[in-house]
Amino acid sequence: MSVAAEFAKANEGYVKSFGEKASLALPPARKVAIITCMDARIDPAASLGLKEGDAHVIRNAGGRAQEALRSVIISQQLLGTREIVLFHHTDCGMLTFNDDGLRTKLKESVKADVRNAVTPAVDQLSFLPFSNLEQSIKEDVAYLKASPLLLEETKTKITGWVYDVYSGKVTQVA
Amino acid sequence: MSVAAEFAKANEGYVKSFGEKASLALPPARKVAIITCMDARIDPAASLGLKEGDAHVIRNAGGRAQEALRSVIISQQLLGTREIVLFHHTDCGMLTFNDDGLRTKLKESVKADVRNAVTPAVDQLSFLPFSNLEQSIKEDVAYLKASPLLLEETKTKITGWVYDVYSGKVTQVA
Repeated sequence: MSVAAEFAKANEGYVKSFGEKASLALPPARKVAIITCMDARIDPAASLGLKEGDAHVIRNAGGRAQEALRSVIISQQLLGTREIVLFHHTDCGMLTFNDDGLRTKLKESVKADVRNAVTPAVDQLSFLPFSNLEQSIKEDVAYLKASPLLLEETKTKITGWVYDVYSGKVTQVA
Repeated sequence: MSVAAEFAKANEGYVKSFGEKASLALPPARKVAIITCMDARIDPAASLGLKEGDAHVIRNAGGRAQEALRSVIISQQLLGTREIVLFHHTDCGMLTFNDDGLRTKLKESVKADVRNAVTPAVDQLSFLPFSNLEQSIKEDVAYLKASPLLLEETKTKITGWVYDVYSGKVTQVA
């Protein structure tokens, strides 16, 4: 069975107990957007006490702010969020590689007949790895605070945190 | 109190009951990457029966595949996932606007002294809205299946689903 089919099966129980969640509003009730990593060990709802309807949750490899900008603009302009909480985490995959290494690996993995064709595109891809966890958080918070495209009134409510995958604990660093 | 401070408070309980999660491995146990929207009403773990450690979860405004590509490449190349399950959902904010309208709104919201300076960048931003839910899912699945940068062996295990925010139910459409 595919994992997708397992999801559909597990979903049946969620639907049965859905209840009052059917009437939740589109705008996040707590007016906050969370940016965090796609890492499988992270459950934002469980670890931060979120209920359905509370917060936008933006996740990508590393929890990088640049890639989240489109989503954050939509979140602020159309859906009323006024705070941003960004997390990167210990033991992140982004600490384990650099762009050149992953580009080479990617080119080796594609079908031989398209390798030359994709090489220029692959050589321009940036995978946004980082070598220092705390520094990456400070850089991403600084990037958001400096962006002219985010609402000025929210700039004092942008914070950066480490999520520790070995304890589940969050600690503010920016 | 900021929402971030409320998160830190709620996190204390999670840390106390963290237990065996401290020894979870970095690669997702179920070898799957989920792509879904940042929408506040969606809790992937609760609605799909996910435990910490199971799956990469990539979330952005709309659950758009193009923006998820960097993360999916990292997921496949470095962390061993071999299936992709993509969800868009009913009542999505992406169904409510178009690029021109949001660009105008964004320009009006920035400080007057930087409005001219940011206009060229804003006019080039695409916010990836869509006007037909089912079509957007089919297009995103087709985009992933056509990408030469994703592993060929995974192409038969890319599926697209509607998540219904009024019932919690997931339904496959691609």
